[in-house]
Amino acid sequence: MLIVGEKINTSIPGISEAVEGKDVLFIQNLAKRQVEAGANVIDVNVGTRIHTEAEDMRWLVKTIQSAIDVPLSIDSPNPEALRMGLKEHKGRAMLNSITGESKRVKDILPLLKEFRPSVIALTMDDGGIPQDAETRYQISQRLVQLLSGAGIPEDNMYMDPLMRPISTDSEAGLAVLDAIGKIKNSSKEIHVICGLSNISFGLPKRGLINQAFLLMAMAQGLDSVILDPLDRKLISLIKAGEALLGKDKYCAGYLRAFRADELAEE
Amino acid sequence: MLIVGEKINTSIPGISEAVEGKDVLFIQNLAKRQVEAGANVIDVNVGTRIHTEAEDMRWLVKTIQSAIDVPLSIDSPNPEALRMGLKEHKGRAMLNSITGESKRVKDILPLLKEFRPSVIALTMDDGGIPQDAETRYQISQRLVQLLSGAGIPEDNMYMDPLMRPISTDSEAGLAVLDAIGKIKNSSKEIHVICGLSNISFGLPKRGLINQAFLLMAMAQGLDSVILDPLDRKLISLIKAGEALLGKDKYCAGYLRAFRADELAEE
Repeated sequence: MLIVGEKINTSIPGISEAVEGKDVLFIQNLAKRQVEAGANVIDVNVGTRIHTEAEDMRWLVKTIQSAIDVPLSIDSPNPEALRMGLKEHKGRAMLNSITGESKRVKDILPLLKEFRPSVIALTMDDGGIPQDAETRYQISQRLVQLLSGAGIPEDNMYMDPLMRPISTDSEAGLAVLDAIGKIKNSSKEIHVICGLSNISFGLPKRGLINQAFLLMAMAQGLDSVILDPLDRKLISLIKAGEALLGKDKYCAGYLRAFRADELAEE
Repeated sequence: MLIVGEKINTSIPGISEAVEGKDVLFIQNLAKRQVEAGANVIDVNVGTRIHTEAEDMRWLVKTIQSAIDVPLSIDSPNPEALRMGLKEHKGRAMLNSITGESKRVKDILPLLKEFRPSVIALTMDDGGIPQDAETRYQISQRLVQLLSGAGIPEDNMYMDPLMRPISTDSEAGLAVLDAIGKIKNSSKEIHVICGLSNISFGLPKRGLINQAFLLMAMAQGLDSVILDPLDRKLISLIKAGEALLGKDKYCAGYLRAFRADELAEE
């Protein structure tokens, strides 16, 4: 499971202030803690700081990469902020995200050709976020074509079948689970990723819904996820899920986490 | 999700003593608490009391049915204990279990024809418990034929693709998950059931593995389960899982459980 840590996001209380004050240690510490907790990629999102987004992104990439070795996910719909982040990034970055929307494709395509990042591709287009699994799958296939044409190998593609909250549509969970299975079955190389929190929007005890969805999605082929890696229960369930899917030979990773006292059972 | 409560089993400390002492209130209370916590069926197993098993089974069925209204699962490999339990049981009981083993088939078939119970059928035969998904599926199909021949409708069949511990076979979880999907896809009517605890045998923090497996199995089509219904975390995850699978319109059941303070998030 590829874990993308979501905590460096200026929409989270305290983060914008740290970016504003150029608080190097705060940011580096938050990146390090996520990596120590299991994150394989650190997402960086300064979308709330619209007037300084591109420059803030550049500063964050530089600041974080001088403290940790994992790649960063440069997270913005703004092509200028993406460009600044990708340009500053050493090694292969992750671009978060492209969609099937005409304007977004036009904006992002040149960046793909120039920087050859890994890419998170959201299965939506000018028609918005689909309700059903089949439309998500069809859009994902068009995105695969597009990304292949831009020189991105399938192993660097991360399809995100965007979630709608089940509180407003009882079929929303099933549609995304089906979409994950369809996309994963279309290619062994292509990855399927999702953010965990939307699905539970509007419901109480959201952690329960997120935990349940994560495991169900893993059973359908989800192999990467954007979440809070400091949530020990989620990370513990991922380790249990990997052991159950035969992805953890002799349960070695699970047992190592247990011995390091990292597993939260309750 | 059909929940079979597993707590009335004389291999659990305290239960054999209650049966020995004919402690009506203890047994009735344990049955009631399981039903209140969400059990749809109460399993009854007195397998450790080999000298008095059949008579104990009769007494338990009578005692429990005078306190609660849900069906009982008469759980034994012993045909005489099964007969006594089925004979005493009012309404349609669940028989737990038949297998594809020649001797077991010979013993159980007459009971099916006489009592027409719901049936838990374990996907094993004279070759033992299969390692792979395909053999489990093949055995399940032979069991479906056998049960149909005995007059059991598919909607009363519960196939159990027996779990091996992942601690001794890293592929064991994947094999069972695949088997659940194959069996469920073979018929809309047939149910797939499993006991939760074997899969985690030999590992620490077994609750984590059981929680993860339950959700993964639900995503594959598991629609019934044998577990401890007093484990609030498991029951809460089942409710979250049902909402995610579109089986809980408007998340009404989930919200009702929340308002009754029944959801355990952590």
